[in-house]
Amino acid sequence: MDPKQLAFHAALSQAASAVEDRLDALLPAAETELAAAMRYATLSGGKRLRAFLTLEIAGMFRAPRVPAERVGAAIECIHAYSLIHDDLPCMDDDDLRRGKPTVHKRWDEATAVLAGDALQTLAFEILTGAQTAQDPAIRIKLIRSLAQAGGVFGMVGGQALDIAAETAVSPLSLDEISALQSLKTGALIRCAAEAGALLSRSDPSPFVAYADALGLAFQVQDDILDVTGDAEAAGKRLRKDDAAGKATFVSILGIDGAKRRASELAEEAISHLSPFGLAAENLRQAARFAIQRTS
Amino acid sequence: MDPKQLAFHAALSQAASAVEDRLDALLPAAETELAAAMRYATLSGGKRLRAFLTLEIAGMFRAPRVPAERVGAAIECIHAYSLIHDDLPCMDDDDLRRGKPTVHKRWDEATAVLAGDALQTLAFEILTGAQTAQDPAIRIKLIRSLAQAGGVFGMVGGQALDIAAETAVSPLSLDEISALQSLKTGALIRCAAEAGALLSRSDPSPFVAYADALGLAFQVQDDILDVTGDAEAAGKRLRKDDAAGKATFVSILGIDGAKRRASELAEEAISHLSPFGLAAENLRQAARFAIQRTS
Repeated sequence: MDPKQLAFHAALSQAASAVEDRLDALLPAAETELAAAMRYATLSGGKRLRAFLTLEIAGMFRAPRVPAERVGAAIECIHAYSLIHDDLPCMDDDDLRRGKPTVHKRWDEATAVLAGDALQTLAFEILTGAQTAQDPAIRIKLIRSLAQAGGVFGMVGGQALDIAAETAVSPLSLDEISALQSLKTGALIRCAAEAGALLSRSDPSPFVAYADALGLAFQVQDDILDVTGDAEAAGKRLRKDDAAGKATFVSILGIDGAKRRASELAEEAISHLSPFGLAAENLRQAARFAIQRTS
Repeated sequence: MDPKQLAFHAALSQAASAVEDRLDALLPAAETELAAAMRYATLSGGKRLRAFLTLEIAGMFRAPRVPAERVGAAIECIHAYSLIHDDLPCMDDDDLRRGKPTVHKRWDEATAVLAGDALQTLAFEILTGAQTAQDPAIRIKLIRSLAQAGGVFGMVGGQALDIAAETAVSPLSLDEISALQSLKTGALIRCAAEAGALLSRSDPSPFVAYADALGLAFQVQDDILDVTGDAEAAGKRLRKDDAAGKATFVSILGIDGAKRRASELAEEAISHLSPFGLAAENLRQAARFAIQRTS
């Protein structure tokens, strides 16, 4: 592997382990089934791409590490809550997530609803802490950014559109899928990048533009892997969209077209990083990783 | 009716209508089914006791009205989200709420889960606004108070205990029910009172103690009305706990014992208001109302 790729993978796994430790300390002790379910859903691994973005961007401007890890942990709580609720029988009805039973299979639906609810609450509570940012005005900006990313004009709104698409008469167009994914998965990725800029008092706009393109590239690659990947490596059920007759980037563009689109999006993401020279190398590698990964 | 009672009822309905207007403006326009469901669940009336407490306590100290209405609206969003999720088939499985179909009956379960999720997010977003409090440090305190009231050591934790109690081998004791209700319904009532004090920079402790006793008195009366009331006036299914073999204040204390307990709790609530003289008269009446109401 190229030294730049190695450095990126080191940074990604270092961010993942730092945020995992932070989450371990911030989550309630597993003294109740509810708390155990919250820990199970949040500490079960994953790439921690969102937390990586926050830490990496904060780190580029030498912002302190602990606040960035706390913000990364809060964003991962929101991500984990959304996965628990999305996996419910009334939503995507998934039994497996990262190779393990989903929360409602391991416990029950009531516990899954409540664990998701409590993880959302915990995310906002984490952001109120003085250790997240000494200046309360910065904490308010972080909370506002996360609330806007998570709400009806962000992640939850996108999930509602996605569910509506399943029963729609005609499949979505390319623009409609892009708009849907920009809400469903893009909003939180964008928030993670913006948070890194807020913590380091740098201009968020290039990072938000980078994260927009990165999030979409990631999603196009997800659609490609859903068709070409194997379920064991993915740790979840694949080819579900095709079975449900749902439009995806692949169903509209074909495999080769989707690969080209992913590549364009990664290049677009990278183009927003030109002001930052060598300091942005890990973010450039993240954009390449988004479209080269196999799981 | 006694003039003091009249003044209280005027303040209660004025608070309800002010917070309803505020919610109407803060909720997203009903342009999607998700937004329509959020509006339906949040604007469907109710006593607005929580918002009343915030407005009344802020008003006692002449704190400005708009911030208190916004905080009341945020707390009512959390209350509404908790009712949507509690009504789900996997939780209490209720078809009616305030005489109308519950969200998952009127729409579907996916919409109910997402509308609840988005209402929780909206509550925190409302609190970040500069109109909620000019000083960001006060906004942070309000957000922290709401997050602690809503989370695993508050409302959601209480709901999890309540669901666990349904399948427990032995019914709960009086202390256990009191502890459960102090989380499930008490935490948010306490938060509403604390928020009024935070907005007016007054000492929260007497109001928190008042709200603790008031919340419990309210719950004891709910258990009494569940046995003696009629479903039409209540707008929901009654005598469910009895059918499920669940312990309540009435099943443990009997009707007369529960009435005595409610009365003691109302007196205890009132006792915490002695420093405030005439200014606290509406809060005193609220405690009497909690145990005299018939629906």
